[in-house]
Amino acid sequence: MSFDDTERLSNAIRFLAIDAIVRAGEGHQGVPLGMAEIATALFTRHMKFNPADPQWPDRDRFVLSNGHGSMLLYALLHLTGYANFGIEQIRTFREMGSHCEGHPEFDTASGIEVTTGPLGQGIANAFGMAVAEAYLNAKFGAGIVDHYTYAFVGDGCLQEGVGQEMISLAGHLKLGKLILCWDDNRITDDGSTELSISENVSERFRVAGWHVIEVDGHDLAAVSDALAQAKADPRPSMLACRTTIARGIARLQGQRGGHSGRLFDKDADAARNAMNWPHAPFEIPDDVLHAWREAGRRSEEEYRAWRERVASLSAQARAEFDRIQAGELPDGWRQTLQAYKRDAATRDEAPGGIMISAEINDLLANVLPERMVGCADLEAPTSHKRSLRAFTAEDRGGAYVHCGVREHVMGAMANGMAAHGGVIPLTVTYLAFSDYERPAMRMAALMGLPVKFVFSHDSIGVGKNGPTHQPVEILASLRAMPNMHVFRPADAVEAAECWVLAYERTNGPSTMVFARQALPLVRTTHDDDNRSARGGYVLAEAQGGARRVTLVATGSEVAPALAAREQLQASGIATAVVSMPCCELFDEQDAAYRSDVLGANTVRVVVEAAVRFGWERYVGERGGFVGMKGFGASGPADALYEHFGITPRHIVEEVKRHL
Amino acid sequence: MSFDDTERLSNAIRFLAIDAIVRAGEGHQGVPLGMAEIATALFTRHMKFNPADPQWPDRDRFVLSNGHGSMLLYALLHLTGYANFGIEQIRTFREMGSHCEGHPEFDTASGIEVTTGPLGQGIANAFGMAVAEAYLNAKFGAGIVDHYTYAFVGDGCLQEGVGQEMISLAGHLKLGKLILCWDDNRITDDGSTELSISENVSERFRVAGWHVIEVDGHDLAAVSDALAQAKADPRPSMLACRTTIARGIARLQGQRGGHSGRLFDKDADAARNAMNWPHAPFEIPDDVLHAWREAGRRSEEEYRAWRERVASLSAQARAEFDRIQAGELPDGWRQTLQAYKRDAATRDEAPGGIMISAEINDLLANVLPERMVGCADLEAPTSHKRSLRAFTAEDRGGAYVHCGVREHVMGAMANGMAAHGGVIPLTVTYLAFSDYERPAMRMAALMGLPVKFVFSHDSIGVGKNGPTHQPVEILASLRAMPNMHVFRPADAVEAAECWVLAYERTNGPSTMVFARQALPLVRTTHDDDNRSARGGYVLAEAQGGARRVTLVATGSEVAPALAAREQLQASGIATAVVSMPCCELFDEQDAAYRSDVLGANTVRVVVEAAVRFGWERYVGERGGFVGMKGFGASGPADALYEHFGITPRHIVEEVKRHL
Repeated sequence: MSFDDTERLSNAIRFLAIDAIVRAGEGHQGVPLGMAEIATALFTRHMKFNPADPQWPDRDRFVLSNGHGSMLLYALLHLTGYANFGIEQIRTFREMGSHCEGHPEFDTASGIEVTTGPLGQGIANAFGMAVAEAYLNAKFGAGIVDHYTYAFVGDGCLQEGVGQEMISLAGHLKLGKLILCWDDNRITDDGSTELSISENVSERFRVAGWHVIEVDGHDLAAVSDALAQAKADPRPSMLACRTTIARGIARLQGQRGGHSGRLFDKDADAARNAMNWPHAPFEIPDDVLHAWREAGRRSEEEYRAWRERVASLSAQARAEFDRIQAGELPDGWRQTLQAYKRDAATRDEAPGGIMISAEINDLLANVLPERMVGCADLEAPTSHKRSLRAFTAEDRGGAYVHCGVREHVMGAMANGMAAHGGVIPLTVTYLAFSDYERPAMRMAALMGLPVKFVFSHDSIGVGKNGPTHQPVEILASLRAMPNMHVFRPADAVEAAECWVLAYERTNGPSTMVFARQALPLVRTTHDDDNRSARGGYVLAEAQGGARRVTLVATGSEVAPALAAREQLQASGIATAVVSMPCCELFDEQDAAYRSDVLGANTVRVVVEAAVRFGWERYVGERGGFVGMKGFGASGPADALYEHFGITPRHIVEEVKRHL
Repeated sequence: MSFDDTERLSNAIRFLAIDAIVRAGEGHQGVPLGMAEIATALFTRHMKFNPADPQWPDRDRFVLSNGHGSMLLYALLHLTGYANFGIEQIRTFREMGSHCEGHPEFDTASGIEVTTGPLGQGIANAFGMAVAEAYLNAKFGAGIVDHYTYAFVGDGCLQEGVGQEMISLAGHLKLGKLILCWDDNRITDDGSTELSISENVSERFRVAGWHVIEVDGHDLAAVSDALAQAKADPRPSMLACRTTIARGIARLQGQRGGHSGRLFDKDADAARNAMNWPHAPFEIPDDVLHAWREAGRRSEEEYRAWRERVASLSAQARAEFDRIQAGELPDGWRQTLQAYKRDAATRDEAPGGIMISAEINDLLANVLPERMVGCADLEAPTSHKRSLRAFTAEDRGGAYVHCGVREHVMGAMANGMAAHGGVIPLTVTYLAFSDYERPAMRMAALMGLPVKFVFSHDSIGVGKNGPTHQPVEILASLRAMPNMHVFRPADAVEAAECWVLAYERTNGPSTMVFARQALPLVRTTHDDDNRSARGGYVLAEAQGGARRVTLVATGSEVAPALAAREQLQASGIATAVVSMPCCELFDEQDAAYRSDVLGANTVRVVVEAAVRFGWERYVGERGGFVGMKGFGASGPADALYEHFGITPRHIVEEVKRHL
């Protein structure tokens, strides 16, 4: 770029941020004012990006992990020429309907790679993007996939456990194309960072195997040099950028109030004088804007060359690359699962629930090579590795990431992979530990990312490990989450159906919940249709007269519900069993279907080895419930089912109480 | 202790573990076999404890953070003579009703300091215990409170983010009496730790300001010397104990299967031969048992001296110490809140919800000096510091812990404080970030610890910060948790009532949820009774005839429900408003009360700026709901309430749809 008055480039960021925050009456100026030079160095001298094609698959990724500093990102997108970030968007920062929302919201078509705000997750998303890049690079070659992932990060992100998990794991995996710029401003919301941290953050990164460069964050040339070094180093890099928070606002800079203390017109006026910026609010002088737009075109040649390389791929490679970039599934995967389902219906043995899921996914290992699986140190009991190789520092072609006992970064990694594209991420751990991963699951639901969160050991069926390891409230807590589909299949046939639904879902995450214990078959005749697709269905209709009782069950409780039905039928009580592998899909059905399935004017009893919370919408105020009233206990699984009263006998008794 | 054949002491632990695990058919032998010498060194030479008084307030605390190794703890409790751990308990390891549960379950009367299993939380609990000790030491003097907190910890605990948060914060706070023994066996469930970690763990601790000693974990004398050094050092200490997992089981030791690979009789036989242990299963030779029992009496003199020192305290100091140890509240606190409530009912201004909570708690700062408050870097927007001083490395008398942006360790710290006793812990952050703290909240609920989890910014009322910061599903997800009371008061009067209920609750945690925005008064006349105590109550009865409509609302939505009632009454529709600050307490009321409040045969509409999930138990299948259908958005709070249809007008429309 020919424009060398870099101070004015950085100040353009500053004044867009100041003007937008003054106008909105609130916002976080600390980051955009403190990191303006760092951002200028990155976007004018290093980033590979194309505002005319924000979703260019091989663009460098940029994550603002300190997402409260959103105006930094919006200013960059405006200045470099992203279509959806015209000046009218900047003017409406934080208003309803503006692209300039309080925190950046995932929208790759507009230039926002990921939603950030909940601290620590952004850098963990960036880590996931870097993993995806390395995997795709190994798969398609450096001519097609070869980009960096940059993340800006504040003190909060590095204090959060998920940030620490990321540091450890990214160092271990030697993700050399992951580059963080730490806004080392020594201020958090409470004041000096000395209130809550004493350690040398750079040393902490070095211990984990990172390449660390300490640099003056307001020295654009020095930052640019450091970025060049970072790009050349085979280790992940962290630029410790010493900065002054809210630099340019004399009243607040370097102080606690710099973070988000309210800005007034007089602060903006004073800053204009001090920085010699004689332009009206939201006005960027032509030469500065021109220079920024030129920066926005800095990768045009790379872009053209990349397109030519893609065009010259073999037809097959090209088709495969286009397919996975589009998130489309290949021919054949559905048939694979359909064949599994057909066989399962007549199978003699009843494998453990989680083993069924592992079997199914192993069948897809070659059919869906874009699948990547992360697991939190439970390879053997969850079994989803099977024929996959490990993704390691030496082998980027492996699709199985040993995440260690780090559930939160695992989930956030998966979100980063899904946001990156070209990869379908699964994560696997015990359902009891989903709470550790939950902040990432929430973000997947909010962003609408098609991550598959797989869990085993889904109830008191865990047995002797006791209540810490026995989920009782977790199904309800996940069903409460908007845009999350929670699947709890009853047997291998339903599992195949539910996995089809999960892979078909592209606008949100799926939670796949499996028992540890064996799931005996409840679907013994093959049906070409995917009966789970409507969420709930009549598995066994009442016989010998009009239905009087409807048992609604999920997962491992469908089999005891069927056994209870036998007993009830034998005593002349016409009883149906409804299997409900996915409440969210059932709730989407029309009222007539729902009423038919649940049985108008029948006694309804729900059976699930979990708490009742949330089930009242099907059983009403007067319906019955067989399940858990509180936490579990340590003992053999069968003894626990008896102890907590979740057996065919108890179901029959509950029905009779309500008849 | 006079017995110097320490190998047999350690092997007594080993064989109790082996025999119990073989008999149970499952269990985790890795820890008890790998840490037997470390445990022997600690319990026979260093620990201050008294099996005859397991709850001795000044005992050293011992936390088995790698809780899956539970047989190590049970063996120690048996050998040192805890009454509830007779050999018949060891024999029934993992059976229903045994004290020897799969994972240790909180039971200080029996000798178990805290429930462990979910990794990382145990050392964070231990950190909380050390904070409580330092605080009480400053308050009552070293003659009354002066003990160490020891924790055994595995690789998983140190990989977890919460463990990393703890390392950082404990180093910062220089908690010199916190001592970890790391079982450095280089094996996790998946196999070699090299699969998922490369960093030098000792160095990571040193960076955070810890005193680290590397030692052979099977050299009892060396471990004992290291413990002596650790106790003398003013920094928190970590003993990096190099060990062999499952040492003594030739087939598995040092290998992946050592963790929890199944043990058989023949393994036990081989171990008996190899270790020259010619005793029957569950049989400890007299001389060894005698020596262990002697170790169990090693602190008798210290115990007597401590009791004398307590007895010689001034009557006032003695009474205060006994009171807070018993978890009893002092005279006066209730009157303080009653006076606040009386004043609040006639107050002109309407403060922000969270500011009301802050006011109330500030009134208790002197009345309840055993309160400690942790906050995750949101001091200003949550305001619960006020007159409290910070707890720092230099000032142990401060009661406010700046936790940094580390919600998970904050919650686990609070659990450790509550388990320790003598301290009433509160934690404060935004409700949207409760997900980060949730794994600890679950443990508080499971253990029945009276922690107060305080949250602000409880809905779309947060406004412009957007959906990442706006809880919508979180109220439901917390209400789904057994033994958790969730309070969402409507105004300052209800807030005072709910805080009374939270402080009165001793057998479980309370979640206190407050709006960021102003809460206008809905209770304008004083009532001596605590109306919130029944969870829900008729705030405004229908007028002009029999009640036709019942509006049920919580928190900031009670005021719009009242406004809607005005409109409905004006159109001749007799409408009541029920305020429901705590569903769990309401659910405990008898059926007649609940029916009276909810209004049999009335149209019921729930109003809450959150998802509907869980509310159907009050509105039934046909009831109405005014609230959120999905995640929020970025915009001014008023605009969001209008956009999402949560206004008096929308409530009236919803009622009319259901009439």
